[in-house]
Amino acid sequence: MGPGEEATPADEADAFRLGALLAADGWVVLSGGRDAGVMRAVSQGAKTVPGSLTVGVLPSAGAPVAAGVDVAIVTEMHNARNNVNVQSSHVVLAFAGGGPGTASEIALALKAGKPVILLGGDELARAFFRRLGGDRVVIAGSPEEAAAAARAFRPAP
Amino acid sequence: MGPGEEATPADEADAFRLGALLAADGWVVLSGGRDAGVMRAVSQGAKTVPGSLTVGVLPSAGAPVAAGVDVAIVTEMHNARNNVNVQSSHVVLAFAGGGPGTASEIALALKAGKPVILLGGDELARAFFRRLGGDRVVIAGSPEEAAAAARAFRPAP
Amino acid sequence: MGPGEEATPADEADAFRLGALLAADGWVVLSGGRDAGVMRAVSQGAKTVPGSLTVGVLPSAGAPVAAGVDVAIVTEMHNARNNVNVQSSHVVLAFAGGGPGTASEIALALKAGKPVILLGGDELARAFFRRLGGDRVVIAGSPEEAAAAARAFRPAP
Amino acid sequence: MGPGEEATPADEADAFRLGALLAADGWVVLSGGRDAGVMRAVSQGAKTVPGSLTVGVLPSAGAPVAAGVDVAIVTEMHNARNNVNVQSSHVVLAFAGGGPGTASEIALALKAGKPVILLGGDELARAFFRRLGGDRVVIAGSPEEAAAAARAFRPAP
Repeated sequence: MGPGEEATPADEADAFRLGALLAADGWVVLSGGRDAGVMRAVSQGAKTVPGSLTVGVLPSAGAPVAAGVDVAIVTEMHNARNNVNVQSSHVVLAFAGGGPGTASEIALALKAGKPVILLGGDELARAFFRRLGGDRVVIAGSPEEAAAAARAFRPAP
Repeated sequence: MGPGEEATPADEADAFRLGALLAADGWVVLSGGRDAGVMRAVSQGAKTVPGSLTVGVLPSAGAPVAAGVDVAIVTEMHNARNNVNVQSSHVVLAFAGGGPGTASEIALALKAGKPVILLGGDELARAFFRRLGGDRVVIAGSPEEAAAAARAFRPAP
Repeated sequence: MGPGEEATPADEADAFRLGALLAADGWVVLSGGRDAGVMRAVSQGAKTVPGSLTVGVLPSAGAPVAAGVDVAIVTEMHNARNNVNVQSSHVVLAFAGGGPGTASEIALALKAGKPVILLGGDELARAFFRRLGGDRVVIAGSPEEAAAAARAFRPAP
Repeated sequence: MGPGEEATPADEADAFRLGALLAADGWVVLSGGRDAGVMRAVSQGAKTVPGSLTVGVLPSAGAPVAAGVDVAIVTEMHNARNNVNVQSSHVVLAFAGGGPGTASEIALALKAGKPVILLGGDELARAFFRRLGGDRVVIAGSPEEAAAAARAFRPAP
């Protein structure tokens, strides 16, 4: 989870690498599915891995789907779809420095009892979310650390 | 789309065969995802085909997922998830003799402008939905006819 | 519940009268809230009664609210809001001859175990919904009959 | 918007007073509607004002409604209903020290472009939300200050 149109090139590069790492570990990579920012980059990164599977949970029927999304779920519920994203995930990886949409996903994930791995952001954002979620919030310094942290939450096969 | 706990053995047999036929044609097979009736049967039928992909759009976080569902989307929006099911589909195949849940999906599919292929049901149900949807409603006499009818709505690759 | 832009003048006249009758009986009158057809007419009819209260459950943030709606609830979930409409109602009054949107509301109401009072429509529609809902579906020949039937479902004060 | 079962007596006293102040200013007071914490207190405070109107937007069909709620909207969409709450509001008043549910509402309100007035919380929470929302976030030191701040966002009659 992370910024769309507001993503920086560094965010997108991180997301792309994260997508590839998660897919290589065998995760299904689910994102908000729109053709923008972190959603597009993580899907395209995942698709560099043969046999990968990506899901995009879209806000509306008209939203263009990111290239790299294998399965598009059209919710037609706009930002309320953020709750579908987190409910459908075993672990939520989020850009701590994202805007209100990303912040709502982190909060909804914690409300749903999901583990959250935070990437990026500054001390203020990390401190806020750490207090909000306690032990369920993990800070990762890089896509590699985030992917490594995610392994702890892998469901048994 | 079709009955869950109320499905007859004949409904389930039809759904199982339909799932296999659709998967053999390369469709992603999306259902309501619960471990019951037509949702389970169509997913399991699809999974008899190597390389198939099945999606289950679940009503709630606690609902058991049908065996045979590859990707589980947890909506936590109960019957309102029926709109997600139809919005996410290129073509909706539904049991015309199903209960209110299935009827709502057929109606929402028509509202969304999706083609609907009806399987089973009696003259009353078929006549009602035909009038509601006009040309977008196709009547199929068997899973084989339904799968054949679906091919006309296949998006270009 | 009933047609929006597709409503006939007779539908709107019936909805207006029904709104006034329901409000006079002390019901809160809830509709889909858009500035069209039966939604607008039932709200405006209700507002002819001093002390009446009307609620509109809107599909999206941008949809114009009908004059006559006191409380606007903005769902941003498009046709999935039909489930909110019926879940929030003690009894659902619907135009049996409405289009797919109305049909989905009737079906979702029956799925939710709510009583449904049908107004208008022809033999085919009434027969279909009667079979779908059994005893919970009541046929009314006029707004007066519909309002009278609704009284049976009034919650105790 | 604020904590349910986790609300402190001080939170509830503030919410009760805020409800009374808002109702006295003629606002419709909308909350999450459950019979707990801030949702209950704000509704009951509002109902001390003759002619007040309160709305509760409930997460599920089974959730007990708070005494003091005049109009109950049953969304059946659990925490995704938080988006309905903020979309339906002209201005969002929230307890900055609330848990993940409240944080998600603040974030969704900012995403929806709504003004947010924060009550309570500590420096960390206030700093985080201020940065997330910029000028649209107003800090209030008491229910009286919050109600006064809300007046600036009153729609023209």
